[in-house]
Parts: sequence; structure tokens; C-alpha cells
Amino acid sequence: MTARPVFATTMNTTPFDAIADFLERYCHTLDDGSVDDWSAYFEQDGVYRVTTRENVEANRPIGIVLCEGRGMMDDRIKALKIANIFESHTFRHMVGRPIVEPEFEGRFTVRSSFSVFRIMYTGKTDLFATGRYEDVVSVSESGILFAERSVVLDSRLLDTLMVYPL
Amino acid sequence: MTARPVFATTMNTTPFDAIADFLERYCHTLDDGSVDDWSAYFEQDGVYRVTTRENVEANRPIGIVLCEGRGMMDDRIKALKIANIFESHTFRHMVGRPIVEPEFEGRFTVRSSFSVFRIMYTGKTDLFATGRYEDVVSVSESGILFAERSVVLDSRLLDTLMVYPL
Amino acid sequence: MTARPVFATTMNTTPFDAIADFLERYCHTLDDGSVDDWSAYFEQDGVYRVTTRENVEANRPIGIVLCEGRGMMDDRIKALKIANIFESHTFRHMVGRPIVEPEFEGRFTVRSSFSVFRIMYTGKTDLFATGRYEDVVSVSESGILFAERSVVLDSRLLDTLMVYPL
Repeated sequence: MTARPVFATTMNTTPFDAIADFLERYCHTLDDGSVDDWSAYFEQDGVYRVTTRENVEANRPIGIVLCEGRGMMDDRIKALKIANIFESHTFRHMVGRPIVEPEFEGRFTVRSSFSVFRIMYTGKTDLFATGRYEDVVSVSESGILFAERSVVLDSRLLDTLMVYPL
Repeated sequence: MTARPVFATTMNTTPFDAIADFLERYCHTLDDGSVDDWSAYFEQDGVYRVTTRENVEANRPIGIVLCEGRGMMDDRIKALKIANIFESHTFRHMVGRPIVEPEFEGRFTVRSSFSVFRIMYTGKTDLFATGRYEDVVSVSESGILFAERSVVLDSRLLDTLMVYPL
Repeated sequence: MTARPVFATTMNTTPFDAIADFLERYCHTLDDGSVDDWSAYFEQDGVYRVTTRENVEANRPIGIVLCEGRGMMDDRIKALKIANIFESHTFRHMVGRPIVEPEFEGRFTVRSSFSVFRIMYTGKTDLFATGRYEDVVSVSESGILFAERSVVLDSRLLDTLMVYPL
């Protein structure tokens, strides 16, 4: 496990810019294959979930993935590594401009659209997933972290590779 | 028809940020399937048109779609609903950073790249359209609206579903 | 060869916004097919290179394309025109929010994700390339220019059309 990156809020930066940078860095970390740093983007007891648009609209609380706390996230990554799932492909995340709404002091709800492409070892590239992120982000002197990241997939078809962090 | 959303310009926001937010919210509204709110993004007599790059380059003024005023837009949505076109799929819009140029007081021309993915009921997702938006946007105390939105499609191949707002 | 565009830094604009605008205008120039203006985005002795992620990770310095200086870039465009490569298709670039880090006075390193779609003359559109830009950008009173643009492709499969500027 590598040293946890620190996401300091730079002086002279608006909360919007700091949050937008944070979302983008998260994607670069995953697209670089640095999955050991994944959980560092979350609060110690932060929540990561993946669900589908259909589930959300039907008010089904149960999604596809639920990780509560960094420990569960790190376990997930360990399991994926044992299964050798990271060897064979990489991803490219494209994220839209986030819609940021202040919730209360230092807390923001953030919504953004995304598309993710998958690049196989052979070089073949395809559209992997589209959807929206619905996040709760905490911004403080010490940095920015996800309190919650909900990945709402547009499609009901689930690739088994959806186990990879999105 | 739901209540029309208000797009107030927030204090401490630059025109650029207000406009970029506005463009993104427009896409979220469509991607959420809230087509009844579509015309609310336009001035009462605002213009929405869809054409192709080829048409623009050949100086052919006639495009594929032309709606002049909210009434025509609402009629269009009503017709699509009767034809049940909204039932079977959803969309995901990705928009590039807009290039914003002030035209005169409170009026801006805005250009942005887009790609749109379509998600079928079965879950199958494909690239639906790419192109650029060429907009005229009015920004005032009471909010932001499109005076004109021109959708310039890159491809000359027209899906019949291009009737859906882009 | 058309007159070289000038990319003046507007007053009241942060370096971040000026750089992000610059990256986006570069893409619009290419997507509009204005390839004669391509080299104008670079310093006189600027460097443009294309390589793959695999090459970078294996520390192989040799990439796919290397242009040192505007002259080489203009020669490249001339050759492509003779080969008639521009006739048959257009592109659409989507760029993620750039991560901008100041290096020293007036010099910034910039990283951004991209996806590029290709539109054939027939109208058929497909995903052409994904990857990241790793740029060194100089910002001065007289404008913004690339000192270096490195295009790092995600895929090892190389389309022969990768000769077109990315």
C-alpha cells in the first residue's frame, strides 16, 4: 500500500475549482492503474456504492456494490489483485463539469456525468459505462475527501468488470 | 407540464461559470428524462435548430429541426410523447468546456463540443451523436436562457431518433 | 497558410482558465479541419510527440510521432494534404478538465484526459483514440503556447490515421 496522497485545498482556489480538480484527479489515479490509492479519496468511514438508474427510479436501495469505510475498499482491491483482474486492461474516464451545491459548512453535494472507456491488452477499446456520479464531498483545511460517492449507471446490463472502481 | 425551473445567476459567480453550469444542467435535465422542462431553458421566443456540419459548410440554411419559440418546442415534446418515443431509451450527454465570447451587454456567444451516448431499454449503449453547440445565451438578474441553440452534427447520417432534443 | 491566430491572455482571467480555454480552442481548430493553424499553437521550437502508454511505462523514449519545431509540423501537414488524407473524415475531440501545476514563472505542466471520435465521409462515427495529454505550456503577455505536447495513447493498436494531429 503506497503512501496516501493528500488533497490539500490550495489557497486562492474556490471550493468549486478544488472539488472539480479532486474529481479529475480521482479519475487519473484509476486510469493510471494506481488502485492502491483509491480508498485514499474517501473519508475513513466514507461510502462507495454502485447502482443502476433503474434501481434508483424503482427505489430499490440495494445496488451492485457497497463499500462502507476504507477497510472494505482496500479489501476489495486486494481481492481483485489476487484474481488478477488488473492485468489485462486499463480504463479512461471522461467526466463532465460538476454541478456543486453547498449543503452546509464544508460539505457539498456534487453531481457529474461520466463515460468510461476500456482498453483491452490487445489494444481494442470500447465504451465501458456511462452514468452519473452523485457525491457528498467534505472540504476542509486539511483537504477534500468523499463522504459518499454513488455511481449511478445508465445501463442495466452489468459487465462483470464493474467490480473495478468507477 | 411541471413548473419551469429558474436559472438564477448566483452572486460571486462569473458569467463564464454561470453559463458553463447552465449548459451542464440542460444536459442533466435531458438525461434525467425531464423533457417537459426542455423549453424552459429557452427565451419565450428562443430558437432551437439542428443541422449538420455539411449543411453549414455548404451554406444551406435549412436544417433538420427548427423550433421558433417555446410553444413549438412544447408541441414537439407532446408529439414525441404520443409516439411513445421516450419509453425505450435514455441518453448521456458529455459536453466540453465552452468557449464564451461576450457579444454585448448580457449577451454571449458560446461554442462547445459534445458527444451523446444512447442507452437502449435492453441496456445496450452506443455512441449516438457528436458535434458542436453554437449558442447565443442571455444572462440577466433573473437568470440565464438560450436565445438560440444550434446543434451542428458532425455526421450526415441521421438517426430517426434525432427528433429527441439534443 | 492562413494568418497565425493569437492566443492573448485576457485580463481578469486566471492562468487556469486561460490554459483550459487554450486546450479547448486547439481541439476546435482541429475539429474544424483548420490544420494549417495547427503549428501556431506551438512555440517556434515547440515539441509535439505521440506515444503509447505501454512505451512510456517501458521507458522507451521512441514514440510514434516526433515533431521538433513549427517547420516540421507544417511539413507534416503539407505531406498529409498531398496524400489527400484530410478529405475523407473529420474528428471530434473531448477533453477533460486539465490538472495544471505551475513549474516556474509563466510555465505550467498540464495533464488532461481525452477521447477522440472519427466521423467518416459516409457518416459512420467511431471511437478513434483515448489517452492523456501531458503538456508544458508557456503563458506570457503575448499569449499562450505549447512548449511541449505529448499525446500518450491508451491503446497499443495504432491506426494509420494517427498521422493526423491529435
